[in-house]
Amino acid sequence: MKDKLTIIKVGGKIVEEKESLDSLLRDFAAIEGFKLLVHGGGRSATKVAAQLGIETLMIDGRRVTDDAMLDVVTMVYGGLVNKKVVARLQSLGIDALGMTGADMNIIHSHKRPVKSVDYGWVGDVDSVNGEALSALLRSGVVPVVAPLTHDGEGHLLNTNADTMAGETAKGLAPFFDVSLVYCFEKPGVLRDENDDDSVIAEIDPALFASLKEEGIVTGGMLPKLENAFNALDHGVGEVVITRASSLDDLSLGTHIRK
Amino acid sequence: MKDKLTIIKVGGKIVEEKESLDSLLRDFAAIEGFKLLVHGGGRSATKVAAQLGIETLMIDGRRVTDDAMLDVVTMVYGGLVNKKVVARLQSLGIDALGMTGADMNIIHSHKRPVKSVDYGWVGDVDSVNGEALSALLRSGVVPVVAPLTHDGEGHLLNTNADTMAGETAKGLAPFFDVSLVYCFEKPGVLRDENDDDSVIAEIDPALFASLKEEGIVTGGMLPKLENAFNALDHGVGEVVITRASSLDDLSLGTHIRK
Repeated sequence: MKDKLTIIKVGGKIVEEKESLDSLLRDFAAIEGFKLLVHGGGRSATKVAAQLGIETLMIDGRRVTDDAMLDVVTMVYGGLVNKKVVARLQSLGIDALGMTGADMNIIHSHKRPVKSVDYGWVGDVDSVNGEALSALLRSGVVPVVAPLTHDGEGHLLNTNADTMAGETAKGLAPFFDVSLVYCFEKPGVLRDENDDDSVIAEIDPALFASLKEEGIVTGGMLPKLENAFNALDHGVGEVVITRASSLDDLSLGTHIRK
Repeated sequence: MKDKLTIIKVGGKIVEEKESLDSLLRDFAAIEGFKLLVHGGGRSATKVAAQLGIETLMIDGRRVTDDAMLDVVTMVYGGLVNKKVVARLQSLGIDALGMTGADMNIIHSHKRPVKSVDYGWVGDVDSVNGEALSALLRSGVVPVVAPLTHDGEGHLLNTNADTMAGETAKGLAPFFDVSLVYCFEKPGVLRDENDDDSVIAEIDPALFASLKEEGIVTGGMLPKLENAFNALDHGVGEVVITRASSLDDLSLGTHIRK
């Protein structure tokens, strides 16, 4: 039997407000066994960009990343958010190590080809170095991964954090029994976005198809669920979408099933 | 006999201009044996701070670091400069890992006590985790260290890069035969700052005292030399102050002797 590994993806407001972040990190620190954190930071990036006079352009929920915006996300994701999380986890007794995909070459990607849209310095993941991450985890280190990858030719690439979490889970599935947990402000995938009691407890591919058709699942939740099914198809044991404050009880939230 | 470890400290313009940085990193990549890079980034921090409308206040060459400035140096040192160096080294086949002192708890410090000056979030180094760094190095990883440390209570601290290089060298001296190389734009410590041919080949404590008295060594070179002697007193085998472009021939530059 493989050892259990919990991969937590946290984004949105949670990671960018001190109180919710502190609470999340305390819950994360309490998770037993091997664990890894993937974080976002888009709101902070947009804020810092605005302060620098750089306009944020989003297309289909993805940030167009020119040279100036790449510097901003490198500063905010790789520096500001990542290192604050690391310092906080260290204070909680967790031996955190902040990383981008470039560090120890853990996540290699390529610049997204220009089709109808030129997203600029945005990366699509090619491969995850599961062996290097596995060795780190087994040495007692807890990786804290920022949503940046590299192309092996010296370029950093802005990369979707949900996708990175899914790919990291897949890359570690040969080494661990992986649970992938997307956590955010809501208690799970909701039938009615205004009703927190309408959590859908389980979603399988058939239900996903009908939820899409009915327009119940839209926007940023679509790629999250696609990443979830993709992860399950590649050896990840469990995917849960839940509220950040429910990390201590993963029976809550929405469970994705093959 | 211990294995050789070369610790390079690079700062100033070199790390912040693409051409000189590329050249430095190629030379660094070519160094044989175990190696570790410590970088600065003060000019970029000052520039980004100005763009954000934050004034830089330096006292005795040290940056006063309030909350806003701590965010700036965390972004610039931990993110922008560090991750660019890591991505570039990876493209040169070096398995670089960007770190602050908080990552894997490699460098612990305390907030400098307020005496005549309140420097804010500035750290004085307490200890270097030589075992963790040594294990990383022996696993084939090349640490790239940004000038930030942490206090173990969740706070990042802005820390002088020259000091961090010296402390890191001392912390690794029990594990390796350490050469510490401070490199910058000049070919070494100069008798006449306007004459690049006036490099002082060797400085021992007696010469240092007289150079100080004559006013030949001043400003930022004083703490660099103090760090150098301190490192030699704590088991570091060799300290050289040299031009970044002379990394391939360490017989050049200024050699510090006990």
